[in-house]
Amino acid sequence: MAEKKQQSSAPAKDDNKITTRAANYSEWYQDIVYRAGLAENSDVRGCMVIKPNGYAIWENMQKALDGLFKATGHVNAYFPLFIPKSFFSKEEQMAEGFAKECAVVTHYRLKSIPGQGVVVDPEAKLEEELIVRPTSETIIWNTYRNWIQSYRDLPLLINQWCNVVRWEMRTRLFLRTAEFLWQEGHTAHATQQEAEAETLQMVRVYQKFAEEWMAMPVIVGPKSEGQKFPGAIYTLCIEAMMQDGKALQAGTSHFLGQNFAKAFDVTFQNTEGKREHAWATSWGVSTRMIGGLIMTHSDDNGLVIPPRLAPTHVLICPMGRTDEERAPAIAAAEKLAAELRALPREDFFGFQPISVKLDLDFKNSPGFRFAEGELKGIPVRVELGPKDLEKQACVVARRDIPGKEGKTMGVPLTEAASRISNLLREIQANLYNRAKTFRDANIRSADSYEQFKEMIEQPGFIWAHWDGTRETEDKISEETKATIRCIPFDRPLEEGTCMVTGNPSQGRVLFARSY
Amino acid sequence: MAEKKQQSSAPAKDDNKITTRAANYSEWYQDIVYRAGLAENSDVRGCMVIKPNGYAIWENMQKALDGLFKATGHVNAYFPLFIPKSFFSKEEQMAEGFAKECAVVTHYRLKSIPGQGVVVDPEAKLEEELIVRPTSETIIWNTYRNWIQSYRDLPLLINQWCNVVRWEMRTRLFLRTAEFLWQEGHTAHATQQEAEAETLQMVRVYQKFAEEWMAMPVIVGPKSEGQKFPGAIYTLCIEAMMQDGKALQAGTSHFLGQNFAKAFDVTFQNTEGKREHAWATSWGVSTRMIGGLIMTHSDDNGLVIPPRLAPTHVLICPMGRTDEERAPAIAAAEKLAAELRALPREDFFGFQPISVKLDLDFKNSPGFRFAEGELKGIPVRVELGPKDLEKQACVVARRDIPGKEGKTMGVPLTEAASRISNLLREIQANLYNRAKTFRDANIRSADSYEQFKEMIEQPGFIWAHWDGTRETEDKISEETKATIRCIPFDRPLEEGTCMVTGNPSQGRVLFARSY
Repeated sequence: MAEKKQQSSAPAKDDNKITTRAANYSEWYQDIVYRAGLAENSDVRGCMVIKPNGYAIWENMQKALDGLFKATGHVNAYFPLFIPKSFFSKEEQMAEGFAKECAVVTHYRLKSIPGQGVVVDPEAKLEEELIVRPTSETIIWNTYRNWIQSYRDLPLLINQWCNVVRWEMRTRLFLRTAEFLWQEGHTAHATQQEAEAETLQMVRVYQKFAEEWMAMPVIVGPKSEGQKFPGAIYTLCIEAMMQDGKALQAGTSHFLGQNFAKAFDVTFQNTEGKREHAWATSWGVSTRMIGGLIMTHSDDNGLVIPPRLAPTHVLICPMGRTDEERAPAIAAAEKLAAELRALPREDFFGFQPISVKLDLDFKNSPGFRFAEGELKGIPVRVELGPKDLEKQACVVARRDIPGKEGKTMGVPLTEAASRISNLLREIQANLYNRAKTFRDANIRSADSYEQFKEMIEQPGFIWAHWDGTRETEDKISEETKATIRCIPFDRPLEEGTCMVTGNPSQGRVLFARSY
Repeated sequence: MAEKKQQSSAPAKDDNKITTRAANYSEWYQDIVYRAGLAENSDVRGCMVIKPNGYAIWENMQKALDGLFKATGHVNAYFPLFIPKSFFSKEEQMAEGFAKECAVVTHYRLKSIPGQGVVVDPEAKLEEELIVRPTSETIIWNTYRNWIQSYRDLPLLINQWCNVVRWEMRTRLFLRTAEFLWQEGHTAHATQQEAEAETLQMVRVYQKFAEEWMAMPVIVGPKSEGQKFPGAIYTLCIEAMMQDGKALQAGTSHFLGQNFAKAFDVTFQNTEGKREHAWATSWGVSTRMIGGLIMTHSDDNGLVIPPRLAPTHVLICPMGRTDEERAPAIAAAEKLAAELRALPREDFFGFQPISVKLDLDFKNSPGFRFAEGELKGIPVRVELGPKDLEKQACVVARRDIPGKEGKTMGVPLTEAASRISNLLREIQANLYNRAKTFRDANIRSADSYEQFKEMIEQPGFIWAHWDGTRETEDKISEETKATIRCIPFDRPLEEGTCMVTGNPSQGRVLFARSY
């Protein structure tokens, strides 16, 4: 149903094939997004349509993240879409950082004029313009002012799932769009120490999600001054390496100090009866994660989805040339599907039953049907043909290893369900290990700026010494288009000298070009 | 944590008590919303903040509804927040019905001017204004044009969870706000028959949700012409009676015919190779449901939440004046909590474990603690005092029956978990039956317009004959503020004459004043 149309909106191509990664990584990415039915551009500039196959991945991401947030004591709430313009003036860095490319609501009424269509009613002009939220620190801290009176009201541990809008000029599906979906956590604390612990806890939650659900290894640590969130004291991040060696910032957690409490006058009475400003954190991940998922695992045959986030885990393809051949294959497929669905609900799959799809599309050739399943990224495919059935067996193909190598022939039907359940875990682990091996093999060290400039033309991250100043950071970025992605928590301490200025450095930081 | 603050934003009152329903139903409603920490008005006109306790109910509603949608073959997707203004001119009724009180985006950039704050950049004016979606038929059908080519692409069964904005002048928390959260289903079909079957199926899904989860009985049937959705051929609805006898439209399902397919040129090749316009439905429910939930079940002690939607099912209050008394009470409470949480995951509770909260707030009196649990609507409270423990027993209090009548003393601790599990089901059933009894007792018949005018001043719905014309409907509405809520599917067929015009009528319809 929804399946079919997703092909019709693919860009017109003669051969209908996916561009290979080697030929053009950027076109390959777009082909995957279109052909697997994940998203498409809409007629509204910069806004995407997230199609059913893409949204199903987002739903699974939401479930996993929401579970992690709740396990760490957070609750969800919802704040207004609109922010009065004046709120942006209250926090200086925020105004500079975010009061730029925003959607501005100036009127609140249309008039329908017969024959002329619809026009904006000039009399319905707002006294103060409203901004469609690019992020919600301001409106939320304006609300917290009434919620926080005493130390007993703290901490406030609140998360919001919502849409936000940033008027991006150059957009790219999932990676950079004017409107996107995300979650934003906003917490308030009585002490700096507690707020900093929260900032760290949440970046570790993101790391856990990225590594254990997305099978995407990440590097964790603070951003440099030049890359931090406007309004933050510091920003912690998770950074991932895509298959083309570029970096993707996949999630950030900000320690905001008392900046927003001061801007919005949020004070509480402490245990000694004195009034203090509350301490803040905020943290968020977005539908950009789906872009990261694609660019970490997928291949030239299509999408690859780690089992823990896959909307469908197993595709079963009964085969046969005649009705006589097909009937027993369909029966065996249905029996196996029932067995898989009846496996115990496990935390590994979010307590959902294993999700199985039966492909009964006999009009198309087996090769075509298999390719469709691969395109959509379904982790395991079961082939059930007349010859397999003679032996009461089936063929099990794993999506992470394409071709013959990933196929196991002659799997006895009696063992198939439990072996597939184990295989799903194995695929999850393999995807993570493979991505980590690739990433680690593509991090190099540069010892001079000359070497750095050569190296940055190759895919991968670069360890290099930097003097810690904003000036040098900006210079490197201008000259090489590479930015400091992260100052990893676990970087080796190694004294050296900045590759640009020769000034002393306490250790190398990670540079890369990024999405 | 989040708990505490929710009181601080309650309207200032001397006694901090909830207004009784008898004294002022409207104030009672507002008191419940504030005091139970469900929502509050924001500083953005007409936009509410949904607080953690309110959002937790919405999350449970979403889970239940989403499960029902998926069980009927629907998938989720996401479409842009913004709609180009010209789209509103394409469907005539839509333009008249919705192109009115809308948030209009006219600019896409702010400038931060040091010393002056933030201003709208006059150079960043959009060529075509964008409307923040009041509902998404137009943008979705504009997208469907590319998705639908052949009968094989149909049906498209898609739902969206999102926020929408309608610039309401008089707002009321949950019931009528400028921004609200909802789901909107938008389906496309090859035949009229199939689209009509879908329209009916979805109103029945809403009925099931209202009755089996919300424990809110509803009347089902089409709206009259005057009350239908702009752009629909007809609208089916579920209507509920609130405790003050007013009606609440709780959900609608629209048969849209080919109106949107024609407006947005969505055609498909049918099985005979001819091009036809697709047939459409749309259907939605919103956070307004939370208002309906409150006004169906809650009482003068606070919120009452049906167990199937309750974020917390059981509150356990260990008691004792000294540490020596408290320690065994806490131990027994923890044991019972663990037993409750370990009960088998059942569909009845959405496969979640039973949610238990331990109240260890010994600073406050038992009476205060019990009242807090009642205010928040937790279905079952367990009291564990020294005297109960001597007998290895506890007191179990049900929220739906306040006071002594709802308390069972001396429940053996060994039986408590299983009895509470049964009691939760019993409460769910009782709430439904009580609401249905109340509603049925408050539906009367009027045989003349005079009688109708008298009756309408009393709470309740009125069965009356109407000639079926828009003119008469409008006249009644203007003169009595009552509208036709529904032409129930199961109304008795009874010939008669319209109470206003004396023209023939085929049966009575339901009138009421409404929210």
